[in-house]
Amino acid sequence: MRNIRIEKALQRPVEQDELEVVERKGLGHPDSISDGIGESVSRALSKAYKEEVGHVLHHNTDEIQITAGESDPKFGGGQIIKPIQILLTGRAATEFKLPNGKSQKIGVDSIAIKAAKEYLRDTIINLDVDYGTVVECKIGQGSADLTDVFDRETTVPSSNDTSFGVGFAPFTQTEKLVLETEHLLNSKDFKKKYPMVGEDIKVMGLRENDQVTLTVAMAFVSKYVNDRDEYLNLKDEFKNIIADNAPNYTDMGVDVLINTADDESVKDESGYYLTVTGTSAEMGDDGSVGRGNRSNGLITPNRPMSMEATSGKNPINHVGKIYNLLSNQITQEIAQDVEGVRNVEMIILSQIGKPIDQPRTATARIQTQEGYKIEDVEQDVSRIIDKWLENITDIQDFLLEEKIRTF
Amino acid sequence: MRNIRIEKALQRPVEQDELEVVERKGLGHPDSISDGIGESVSRALSKAYKEEVGHVLHHNTDEIQITAGESDPKFGGGQIIKPIQILLTGRAATEFKLPNGKSQKIGVDSIAIKAAKEYLRDTIINLDVDYGTVVECKIGQGSADLTDVFDRETTVPSSNDTSFGVGFAPFTQTEKLVLETEHLLNSKDFKKKYPMVGEDIKVMGLRENDQVTLTVAMAFVSKYVNDRDEYLNLKDEFKNIIADNAPNYTDMGVDVLINTADDESVKDESGYYLTVTGTSAEMGDDGSVGRGNRSNGLITPNRPMSMEATSGKNPINHVGKIYNLLSNQITQEIAQDVEGVRNVEMIILSQIGKPIDQPRTATARIQTQEGYKIEDVEQDVSRIIDKWLENITDIQDFLLEEKIRTF
Amino acid sequence: MRNIRIEKALQRPVEQDELEVVERKGLGHPDSISDGIGESVSRALSKAYKEEVGHVLHHNTDEIQITAGESDPKFGGGQIIKPIQILLTGRAATEFKLPNGKSQKIGVDSIAIKAAKEYLRDTIINLDVDYGTVVECKIGQGSADLTDVFDRETTVPSSNDTSFGVGFAPFTQTEKLVLETEHLLNSKDFKKKYPMVGEDIKVMGLRENDQVTLTVAMAFVSKYVNDRDEYLNLKDEFKNIIADNAPNYTDMGVDVLINTADDESVKDESGYYLTVTGTSAEMGDDGSVGRGNRSNGLITPNRPMSMEATSGKNPINHVGKIYNLLSNQITQEIAQDVEGVRNVEMIILSQIGKPIDQPRTATARIQTQEGYKIEDVEQDVSRIIDKWLENITDIQDFLLEEKIRTF
Amino acid sequence: MRNIRIEKALQRPVEQDELEVVERKGLGHPDSISDGIGESVSRALSKAYKEEVGHVLHHNTDEIQITAGESDPKFGGGQIIKPIQILLTGRAATEFKLPNGKSQKIGVDSIAIKAAKEYLRDTIINLDVDYGTVVECKIGQGSADLTDVFDRETTVPSSNDTSFGVGFAPFTQTEKLVLETEHLLNSKDFKKKYPMVGEDIKVMGLRENDQVTLTVAMAFVSKYVNDRDEYLNLKDEFKNIIADNAPNYTDMGVDVLINTADDESVKDESGYYLTVTGTSAEMGDDGSVGRGNRSNGLITPNRPMSMEATSGKNPINHVGKIYNLLSNQITQEIAQDVEGVRNVEMIILSQIGKPIDQPRTATARIQTQEGYKIEDVEQDVSRIIDKWLENITDIQDFLLEEKIRTF
Repeated sequence: MRNIRIEKALQRPVEQDELEVVERKGLGHPDSISDGIGESVSRALSKAYKEEVGHVLHHNTDEIQITAGESDPKFGGGQIIKPIQILLTGRAATEFKLPNGKSQKIGVDSIAIKAAKEYLRDTIINLDVDYGTVVECKIGQGSADLTDVFDRETTVPSSNDTSFGVGFAPFTQTEKLVLETEHLLNSKDFKKKYPMVGEDIKVMGLRENDQVTLTVAMAFVSKYVNDRDEYLNLKDEFKNIIADNAPNYTDMGVDVLINTADDESVKDESGYYLTVTGTSAEMGDDGSVGRGNRSNGLITPNRPMSMEATSGKNPINHVGKIYNLLSNQITQEIAQDVEGVRNVEMIILSQIGKPIDQPRTATARIQTQEGYKIEDVEQDVSRIIDKWLENITDIQDFLLEEKIRTF
Repeated sequence: MRNIRIEKALQRPVEQDELEVVERKGLGHPDSISDGIGESVSRALSKAYKEEVGHVLHHNTDEIQITAGESDPKFGGGQIIKPIQILLTGRAATEFKLPNGKSQKIGVDSIAIKAAKEYLRDTIINLDVDYGTVVECKIGQGSADLTDVFDRETTVPSSNDTSFGVGFAPFTQTEKLVLETEHLLNSKDFKKKYPMVGEDIKVMGLRENDQVTLTVAMAFVSKYVNDRDEYLNLKDEFKNIIADNAPNYTDMGVDVLINTADDESVKDESGYYLTVTGTSAEMGDDGSVGRGNRSNGLITPNRPMSMEATSGKNPINHVGKIYNLLSNQITQEIAQDVEGVRNVEMIILSQIGKPIDQPRTATARIQTQEGYKIEDVEQDVSRIIDKWLENITDIQDFLLEEKIRTF
Repeated sequence: MRNIRIEKALQRPVEQDELEVVERKGLGHPDSISDGIGESVSRALSKAYKEEVGHVLHHNTDEIQITAGESDPKFGGGQIIKPIQILLTGRAATEFKLPNGKSQKIGVDSIAIKAAKEYLRDTIINLDVDYGTVVECKIGQGSADLTDVFDRETTVPSSNDTSFGVGFAPFTQTEKLVLETEHLLNSKDFKKKYPMVGEDIKVMGLRENDQVTLTVAMAFVSKYVNDRDEYLNLKDEFKNIIADNAPNYTDMGVDVLINTADDESVKDESGYYLTVTGTSAEMGDDGSVGRGNRSNGLITPNRPMSMEATSGKNPINHVGKIYNLLSNQITQEIAQDVEGVRNVEMIILSQIGKPIDQPRTATARIQTQEGYKIEDVEQDVSRIIDKWLENITDIQDFLLEEKIRTF
Repeated sequence: MRNIRIEKALQRPVEQDELEVVERKGLGHPDSISDGIGESVSRALSKAYKEEVGHVLHHNTDEIQITAGESDPKFGGGQIIKPIQILLTGRAATEFKLPNGKSQKIGVDSIAIKAAKEYLRDTIINLDVDYGTVVECKIGQGSADLTDVFDRETTVPSSNDTSFGVGFAPFTQTEKLVLETEHLLNSKDFKKKYPMVGEDIKVMGLRENDQVTLTVAMAFVSKYVNDRDEYLNLKDEFKNIIADNAPNYTDMGVDVLINTADDESVKDESGYYLTVTGTSAEMGDDGSVGRGNRSNGLITPNRPMSMEATSGKNPINHVGKIYNLLSNQITQEIAQDVEGVRNVEMIILSQIGKPIDQPRTATARIQTQEGYKIEDVEQDVSRIIDKWLENITDIQDFLLEEKIRTF
């Protein structure tokens, strides 16, 4: 029997708060780049371990530090002066004892550097990864004890730590709007049409009663913008596009502000948010894993959040990663499938050394829809939680197949 | 007129949640060390700027990456194999134009390295900073635009970003207990009596209804523990000390667990939480700024939290830092001084480019005590918020004088 | 009038020494790779300066440190475990004041990293530069004073230092043999036919009276050698090729030894000189500029040598570079064109701050052929020296056009 | 029987060359600092190995790269802006298999960093090593094969490579003068009296027939020099001291030039050779091992030289180090003790894999004094060479006890 608990939530729904704040750091934000690299490295190592050894070995690559470079963007051009420095740290098993007693070496540094560079190439399309970045790897070897956990042929691994994960569903309109606004601006179609829009896009949504203000900071790619007038016209165009997109996610009024720090009295590039590469990491903005979006893609101070960095942690026994992702999956399924649930929040707490499918507690806090009581939904909710815990190692597969986000 | 708003909270008090989770990463946890270094560097730079230039110049040193070293702890001894790598990044003004047109150089790298090392020396007493760490500095030069903001003789600086801070008060019993347990174990008196207790202490509090479980992970300093028996006896002793201390903060039942990952069947050091220096950063655990405690010293998923790293940001116009600290101060004063307030949560939201004493909104959400209505407290609460905003630059002084914590 | 001096040498010719030692570190030796990178970076910066500013600005990039990686070569395959670390240091002007008072930035770091990587790609053909190396750049900004020298529109720059260069000609048979043996093994034709021969080839020639022993250390590329037998057969084949090539350069007897550290009793790869990439820098051997070949391509303890690293120094006023290269050119022309000269050695000594075409002394020490007196050749020798000094800035062009080697 | 050969030299003595150039880079020159650190690290590792394991294990730490910092020297003060970066590379055995099959770890990184810092503290007295330097260690693990050589209990180790060493004696007057001038200026007594003289002192001696010009570049320590006048007066004083010291080593005329790049028309510090720490490594001048003095302390293009970096190589089987040092010892003893020897040069050539006391050849080339024939000295010379080869492992002890210099 698993320790599953269902509570009735007494709070009013977030939608009824007078003030709601939601933020998303887009793909090209330095913190998100760090998250993305950390997760890519973990994924690449996991695959390499599976190929070489048959199962994933111990690793945690959730410590990526981006040190900003220096650039000289100009309308219609610009250059990189000093590349972005990317430090990969963490640890990973670099050797595996084969049954015959010999050691099999795993090229952790090479795999990690390759994964990081490929991620960058795929993600920040105007960044010349070869000449615009320096990727250094200081990943240490995993400690022997933890490595053991992975070597054993266990059906369910044991928790690495006393830790917890949280999740909630469904998203409010403001949450959806913020997330989807970034998705739109970073979509392939949009980039094809508007190549001057870099990936470094931060969307801050502020709902005051039933009016939303979307403040969007978006890096322009300098070589695709010829002058100030073009820049300003584009800003107007994007404002309209964002505003027109909003009704897909909300029926509230939406104001859009773009690059509010611009000084439009200035003629040359110094007054505008121009970059050579599309990310502010090229000049001025450092980044690191776990400082930005939570594992559901958002920062939501009105909601329960975990401080755990999800990206880059090993998907086998790091409950700080797994329980956050699991909470997202569980709450989404509950919100979607259980009639009568208006909102659900989860917290799953581990016990170090115990199998990860046996948490100390998995607690769901439910707001029911009008006309429903907690007893009406309890059984279904409990069943869904149990099913996900039963199949907890699916999370590992979802991650390797890139079916779920971590930031 | 400032945008101050007072709301009535509809949630039940956190104390009435069936499940409450609270965590504190102690001073010697790698994330906390990063926070402490980041803030020390900011403080040292601020002082140097004041001395050389008359006012604080632009800087943000909230990106510190600790890459774990390698060690070989032994009962009664042990050695460092590979030092802890500490990378200081961020940016800071390295030059200041004097009225005569000449430039005054500021030795940012030297100041930063010195501050980091001094912090480490003061904080991790068994760490030989000279030979057990490598402190590297890649702090870049501040961008010209932001620097300008600081050069102007303004009474109130303008927001650097669209961002927000949150806070709440008072602490629940569980919150107090977690915080004070770490304080006790890292107090000077305790360290004098028990030199074998390192600074890397993580306290996780789990309240289930009215029963609290405190799970404490504490690094022992190997040279002060002669063998397994001594280690186990000390664990017992500390369990009692922590349990005996609890009633000062709570009337609930408290269970204490220490170093639950130990394997007591093992005779040699491999089964226990032994370190040479008192921090797990010596082997295996990386750290970075903003990944651990929030600015009130705790991680509290039942409470509103901000993702902003408070430590290391400049105390002049970085609202991600200032509004979090301000929210803590305001809510504490409200909880303490306003009769009838049971719980208060705040969110302060900035407008980029506007003076920081004029936030877009400063909203307090109040739970009143029985017998009080929101109208009874509204005026006092509003007055306190306004007073703090009026004197917002005090936060800068508090930080330089080390009167308030940031992690 | 220039300070040109012609002396009669009293030594016997090197050919008459009973013992002569000559060494060449081939293109792929870690020290030579460092030299090559240093010179490539200097060349790339020189070209960029010319393009952006109109003339070469101050720089010295003669400090490249290669830290070996880690690899796991196997017959028929193998992998890189840890990339080769390449640190570019030195200094270079990063800004140039335009006539309008504005500053023009030069992307020194990006240019340097690009030049280093392109050099590696061109030179070590089996090295995957992207994933098998980390190129980090810590080139500092040039000091203002030295920069000035370059800003002035001078016909002849002034010496940067009190320093000297040396040269000699013609090469002995042993010298030619050593040089040409490496050239053969690293030629394009040879590589096409024998792709398993890496670029890391060290040739040591020992002449004892009229018998030469060539000891060749050559890295094999593991993926092109299927097993021990193939390796040993190839060694035999190469021994014959080298021996057959020798009569082109010498009429002495020549013994050839290849990879003398091999242990042929071993079956697996551990007994042989196998590499994944063709250079020992992939595992075990560090390198740095100026530690290997002198500017004429050889190490010749029987001959005068300069300790100056020629590669990577600026080609404008660094006499440590220019006078060595000039001495090579001058002595070669003298040896070739002046009838009666058997051997010539030169030393050119600078005076700091004086134009580089006015050395403190340019001294030639001549051995004449039988039947010739020093007076017979003095005038021609003097004329050649004077002509080269007159046209000393040609050296700069030769370097930019890659017409002369530096290592 | 050892391969010892005695030849008659036909050259005229160096003293009879019309032109003789001799250079010494003093203790504080960046290249010499690198040499000193490399050798200190090797010494510290050797001692640690002996203590932990009983004998020296494999290591080579002859790759030290100093990247210059940035400073702001002022008459009477000044500050360090950016510390000197010191990268320790090379490789060393980090583990040793004990007879019981267990591994003993050796804290190579910690030992190396400690040795480097202690050397700096002892050598560059005005350098604040804590805050003015960053010492990073990337020493890799020694390859298994080479490690084996050291594990065996052999009386005489085997050569690591095909390589050679050279030496000569006695020093000419110019050589002695250059060496002793630096020794004087860097002596403890002199530093006590003249604390403003930094350790970065380069002495270039140029002998033209029987007139010597000593060009001395010496870094002044800014805090000990109040203004330009004091600086100029000191230069005059030092010029006299150096000139007065010369007759102890030579009967030739000696001209002394100090800091010839100074621009005495300038009033402020920009015109003079001022440093905060006493070494130009603080700003502008990088350094690395093996780029400066040969193992006898001098650079002597008129003499046979080896390119091998002596400092930092292991003292057990690295013939590139041992044979150079041995050649110095042998030639000194011959020059001093064998009647009739005017000058002696040696070359010792190894055979990879053969015991180091059995070189391929040890050849001495002798100039006899008037009235002596080669036959008169041959036997004594041969005996001395044989004795040193017989006792070749003494070199190891001399190095550990710091009885012989390596640069």
